[in-house]
Amino acid sequence: MTSGCTPIADDPDALVAKLTEIVDRLRVAPDRGKVADYIPELACIDPHQFGLSICLCDGTQMNFGDAETPFSIQSVSKAFTLAIALGRFGEGLWRRVGREPSSNAFNSVVDLELEKGKPRNPFVNAGAIVVTDEIMAGRAPRDALAEILWFVRTAAGDNAIYIDEALAKSEKVTGHRNWSLAHFLKSSGNLKHECDLSLGTYFHQCAIEMNCVQLARAGRFLAGLSAKDELVSTSHVRSINALMMTCGHYDGSGEFAYRVGFPGKSGVGGGIMAVVPGKASIAVWSPGLNEYGNSKLGTIALEELSLAAVWSVFSVN
Amino acid sequence: MTSGCTPIADDPDALVAKLTEIVDRLRVAPDRGKVADYIPELACIDPHQFGLSICLCDGTQMNFGDAETPFSIQSVSKAFTLAIALGRFGEGLWRRVGREPSSNAFNSVVDLELEKGKPRNPFVNAGAIVVTDEIMAGRAPRDALAEILWFVRTAAGDNAIYIDEALAKSEKVTGHRNWSLAHFLKSSGNLKHECDLSLGTYFHQCAIEMNCVQLARAGRFLAGLSAKDELVSTSHVRSINALMMTCGHYDGSGEFAYRVGFPGKSGVGGGIMAVVPGKASIAVWSPGLNEYGNSKLGTIALEELSLAAVWSVFSVN
Amino acid sequence: MTSGCTPIADDPDALVAKLTEIVDRLRVAPDRGKVADYIPELACIDPHQFGLSICLCDGTQMNFGDAETPFSIQSVSKAFTLAIALGRFGEGLWRRVGREPSSNAFNSVVDLELEKGKPRNPFVNAGAIVVTDEIMAGRAPRDALAEILWFVRTAAGDNAIYIDEALAKSEKVTGHRNWSLAHFLKSSGNLKHECDLSLGTYFHQCAIEMNCVQLARAGRFLAGLSAKDELVSTSHVRSINALMMTCGHYDGSGEFAYRVGFPGKSGVGGGIMAVVPGKASIAVWSPGLNEYGNSKLGTIALEELSLAAVWSVFSVN
Amino acid sequence: MTSGCTPIADDPDALVAKLTEIVDRLRVAPDRGKVADYIPELACIDPHQFGLSICLCDGTQMNFGDAETPFSIQSVSKAFTLAIALGRFGEGLWRRVGREPSSNAFNSVVDLELEKGKPRNPFVNAGAIVVTDEIMAGRAPRDALAEILWFVRTAAGDNAIYIDEALAKSEKVTGHRNWSLAHFLKSSGNLKHECDLSLGTYFHQCAIEMNCVQLARAGRFLAGLSAKDELVSTSHVRSINALMMTCGHYDGSGEFAYRVGFPGKSGVGGGIMAVVPGKASIAVWSPGLNEYGNSKLGTIALEELSLAAVWSVFSVN
Repeated sequence: MTSGCTPIADDPDALVAKLTEIVDRLRVAPDRGKVADYIPELACIDPHQFGLSICLCDGTQMNFGDAETPFSIQSVSKAFTLAIALGRFGEGLWRRVGREPSSNAFNSVVDLELEKGKPRNPFVNAGAIVVTDEIMAGRAPRDALAEILWFVRTAAGDNAIYIDEALAKSEKVTGHRNWSLAHFLKSSGNLKHECDLSLGTYFHQCAIEMNCVQLARAGRFLAGLSAKDELVSTSHVRSINALMMTCGHYDGSGEFAYRVGFPGKSGVGGGIMAVVPGKASIAVWSPGLNEYGNSKLGTIALEELSLAAVWSVFSVN
Repeated sequence: MTSGCTPIADDPDALVAKLTEIVDRLRVAPDRGKVADYIPELACIDPHQFGLSICLCDGTQMNFGDAETPFSIQSVSKAFTLAIALGRFGEGLWRRVGREPSSNAFNSVVDLELEKGKPRNPFVNAGAIVVTDEIMAGRAPRDALAEILWFVRTAAGDNAIYIDEALAKSEKVTGHRNWSLAHFLKSSGNLKHECDLSLGTYFHQCAIEMNCVQLARAGRFLAGLSAKDELVSTSHVRSINALMMTCGHYDGSGEFAYRVGFPGKSGVGGGIMAVVPGKASIAVWSPGLNEYGNSKLGTIALEELSLAAVWSVFSVN
Repeated sequence: MTSGCTPIADDPDALVAKLTEIVDRLRVAPDRGKVADYIPELACIDPHQFGLSICLCDGTQMNFGDAETPFSIQSVSKAFTLAIALGRFGEGLWRRVGREPSSNAFNSVVDLELEKGKPRNPFVNAGAIVVTDEIMAGRAPRDALAEILWFVRTAAGDNAIYIDEALAKSEKVTGHRNWSLAHFLKSSGNLKHECDLSLGTYFHQCAIEMNCVQLARAGRFLAGLSAKDELVSTSHVRSINALMMTCGHYDGSGEFAYRVGFPGKSGVGGGIMAVVPGKASIAVWSPGLNEYGNSKLGTIALEELSLAAVWSVFSVN
Repeated sequence: MTSGCTPIADDPDALVAKLTEIVDRLRVAPDRGKVADYIPELACIDPHQFGLSICLCDGTQMNFGDAETPFSIQSVSKAFTLAIALGRFGEGLWRRVGREPSSNAFNSVVDLELEKGKPRNPFVNAGAIVVTDEIMAGRAPRDALAEILWFVRTAAGDNAIYIDEALAKSEKVTGHRNWSLAHFLKSSGNLKHECDLSLGTYFHQCAIEMNCVQLARAGRFLAGLSAKDELVSTSHVRSINALMMTCGHYDGSGEFAYRVGFPGKSGVGGGIMAVVPGKASIAVWSPGLNEYGNSKLGTIALEELSLAAVWSVFSVN
C-alpha cells in the first residue's frame, strides 16, 4: 500500500480533472489508429472524435468530449445478448459455445473447424451468432430484436435507442465473413434457425446506435450500480464480467487485462463498455482501432484512468 | 448489493466452518482427477490427499487437511520467476514473451512455430523457460537458482524450502517435451544460454518442494498482504495477477476465471497458488488433475470458497 | 526389368480376365465403406453397386459390373472445369489458386484463412469454386454451365449427359459448408461473382450425372487417347495430370499415389476418373467412401489393376 | 500424340546439345536463389556453381558443368535411408510415419503435434529421423552409418564416398530445430533410441559428400537402370518414387510435380536427385535455394529438360 493512496476515485474533483485532462489530450492525439474499413458505412466515420462517460456508484454520471455523439455499438452488443441468453437459458448455453479465449481474430473460422463448430467463446463473432440464435428460440428476427432492444433500453433507462437499419442492411449484403461463419455453424449443426434469420438478427443487434452517455448507463448492471430489481442476477453479472475480462477484446484480451485490468467489451465501431465491479460503468468511444480491432485511444484512456483511480481488479494498493 | 450480504469472508468463524466443510468433503471425494503421469516421480503420488491454507489481510493464517505435506510446486514456480524477471528487467521482458492466453496445451510447440519463437505468455512452458533464461543473465544455473530460492523463501518467510534434486534430475532425463521447446527457442534465437543450462535451471525451479502453509505465505505479496518493504512493486503485482487471471491455468484459464474469478497459478504437482487482491492468499493442493492439467479438487475448493466469500473480482454483490 | 514381365496390359485377354476377377470380387465385398451422408440425395444410394469401364490406346473400351448405371460425378467435375479454365485463361489462373496438396479435408476452411483466401489447389472445394468463378467470366450460370456440359459431352463423345437439377437444388439448400467457403472467398476478394451465382454453377456442375462408360470416355483426353484435334493442349493435360496426382484425392492423395500410382480425381458420389498417360482412361464407381472421402472399393480396384498391369507411373519394371 | 515427336531423349546428340545449352546458361544466371544459412558450413558455399550428370538406360552417363565438385547431399540422403528401411522392415514402417504431403516447412513441428508424434511423411525432417531411428535397430550409430554408406556406395558403384565429419559435428551443435523434432518424437514415444544417437546418425547421413557424377549413378536403382541383382525391389522403388513425387520437395512438392513431372529428392546443400522411371537418373546441383528450400537453378534445369525430352510422367505426347 503506497502512502497517501486516496486515489482520485475517492475524490470527485480529482477524477473530473484527470478525465478532463485525458480526454482533452486524446481528442487531439495524432496517432488515432485505423477506422474499420470492411463495413462501408463505418469506413467514412471521422476518426477525430473522442467521447467518454462514466457512471459512479453514488449515482452520478460525468460526460466528456463527444459523449453525446451516437455511434454503432457493433460487438459491444454481444455483452447484452449474452446477458439475455444466460437469463433465459442459464448454463445450458455452454453446450453450444465455449468459455475460453481464442488466439485467433474475432472473425476467424479456424477455431470453429478445429472445435467442430463450437465457438470458443460468446464474444468472437461465431460465438455471438450462436448466442443470438439461442435467443431467437423459434421467434422471428423482429421479435428477438424487440427483446434485445428492450433490454438495452431498460439497462440504459432510455428509450431513445434505435437500430441503424441502413447499416444492418448493408452488413447483410457485404458481411461475407459473418455469412461464412453462420454457414459453417449451420453445417456443424450448431445453428437452430436459417442462416439469414440468425444473421439478420445479429447484423441488426450490431447496428444498434448509442452514444457514450447511454452506453455507460447501459453498463451499470454489470458494475452492480443498478437498482434493486435487477435486470440480470448477480451470478450472471459475475459470469459476464469474467468472460469480458478473458475474451472481451478478442486476441488482444490478455493485453487489455494487463494494461487496463477491469472487464470490458469492445466493438469495431470504436466503442468500449467497461466496468469496475461495484464502482463504475464507463463508456468510451473513438473510431480508430488498434491491431486487434479495439479502439486505440479508448483503450489508452481506460488504461490511464485505471492507473489513476487504482481500479484494476488486480491492484493491491 | 443483495441484503444480508455479510459474506463469510467478514466472519472468521463462518469462514473456518465453510473451509472445514469443503476440505472434509473433498478429502474423501470419489472423483479426484488423474495424477500427472509423464513425470515418473509424480506418477506415484497418492491422490487421496488434500490440503489448503489461507492467509488473510489481518495477518491470520488457517490450515486445513494435508496443509503441511510437501509437494512439488512445478509450474506454480512460474509466478515467482516472472516476479523476479519483471523486477530485474521490467517491461523489456515482453520483447521475448507475449501476454496473451493460448488455445493450446501448456507444452504445445504449435504456438511457438506460428509466432516465430516468441511464446504466447510467461505461463506456458516455453514462456517460462524464456523467463528463466532471462533471469540467468549469464550466471551459472546454481546462481540463478540461489536467487529463485531466496525469493521464494523470503516471500514465504521460511528458509526451510528446498529443491528436490532427484526430481529435477529425473525431469532432465525424461522431460523430452521441454527439451523440444528449449531447442525450438534456441533455433529461433530466443534463448540466450545453452539449452541444458536454461532447462537445467527450469527443471530445478519446478522441483521446489513446498507445503500449502508455505505456499499461501509465499503468495501474500501478490495479494498485497506483505509488509511495507515489498519484494515486488505494486505495479508488477498488478501485472502478474492479470497474467495469472488470463493465462494461469493454461487452456483452462477462461474456465478458471469463470468459475473461481480471482487470479491463480497451478502446477501439475496438483498445487494452486491463488490470490484475492487485498484480501487473501490461498494455497490448495490435491494431486489429481482435470483435463487441462490443473488440480481438479483444488479448483473446486477455490470455486466454492469464492462463491461463499464473494471473492470473485467480477462480483458486484 | 524383371523377366517375363509382359504385363496383362499387353494381353487383352489377360486384362479382361483380371478385371473380371476384380470386379466380381468387389461387387460382393463385405466392407464397402460409408456412403456420403451430408448430401441427402446421395445418402440413400445402394452401396452394393460397383462399375468399371476402361478405354485403351487401341480405341477399345471394356465395361464391367454396373458400368452403365448413372451416378453423380460430384468432384470429378473439377478436372473438367480445370481443363476449361486452363484453356481459357492459362497460367494466370494460378494467381487465384495454388498448386500444392493440402493436409486438411476437402471442405476445410482452415487453409483458406491461413493463406488469406487463396485455396491451396483447384481440387479442394474452395479451389474448385474459384475455378468455376473464373470460368463464368461475367456470364450467367446457365451459360457457364452450357460450356461445362458441352465440354464433358464432347470429351465423352456422348450428348446424353445431363445435370440432376433436383440434386443441384438440394445442395444449394443444404450445402452450408460450401456456402461457408464461398462467402469466405468473397470476403477475401477472391470471388468475382455473387456467391449464389458462382456456387449455383458449382452445385450444378457437381450434379452432372454420368455412368462409368461415359466417364472413361470423357477421361481419354487426359490419357492422350483422343483424336488429333484435341480438346485440351498436351501441355495442359500434363498440368492437370500432375495436379490430379498430388491433389486429386484430397488429404488421401499421397496414399493414392503410393498405392495406385497414376493420376485420378475422385468424387463423393463414389466415382473416380483415372488415367494412365498414353495407355488408358479408367472410370470406376462404388458409392461407399473411405476415411478421406474417396471411393473405397474403387481405390482398391485401381490399386489391383495398377499392380497387375504395371501401370504405376513410378514403376521401373 | 503430336507428330514429329521424336523428343531429344531419343537423340543423344540433341540431348547433349540441349543440356549443354541449359547448363551454360544457368552457370551464369544472375538470379541464383539463396544459399542455406542456417548450417554455418553451408552458408559460405560459392553460389556460382552448377553441375549436372545424367545416366541413361543405355548405360551411358553424361556430365556437365561442376559435375565433379563434391557437395553435402543433406536431405537427398532421405531417399537412401527410406530404401534401406523399406528393405529391412517393409510396410511396417508406416506405423511410425505417414505417406502424405505436408503443407508445412521441412522442419515444422506443427504437424508433429497435430498428429501426435507421427510425421506426415519420410521426407520431412521428423519423418527422416524416424526412418533413421528404425534403421538403427538397436545398433550403434557407427554401425547404422556403415550400412547407409555401404548402400550409397553400392548404389553409386563408387567407394570414394565419405561423410564430412566436421559438418556432421557442426550440425550436432547448431541444429537446434532438429533436436527439437527429435525430442518431440521421443516424448511421443516414436523414437526408439536416445535422441543423441538417432540424431547423431541422422546428422552424419546428411553430411555425406557426393558429386553429381556419383549421385546420378546412385539414383539408377530408382530409375530401373541397375543391373539384375537389385539393391531394392521394384515394388519398393515404385513406393519411393511415389513418395518423392508427392513429398520430395517439402511444401513445394506440388510445384515440382507441376513443373518437372518426375520424382526427385532435394537437399539444402543444393543437390537434387531425380529419376525418370525406366529412362534416366539425373543429379543436379546448384547451392542457391528457392523459397521452399530446394535448389532454384536445379529445379529450372530439370523443368527445361523435362519439357525438351517429354519426360514428365504426366505427359501424353
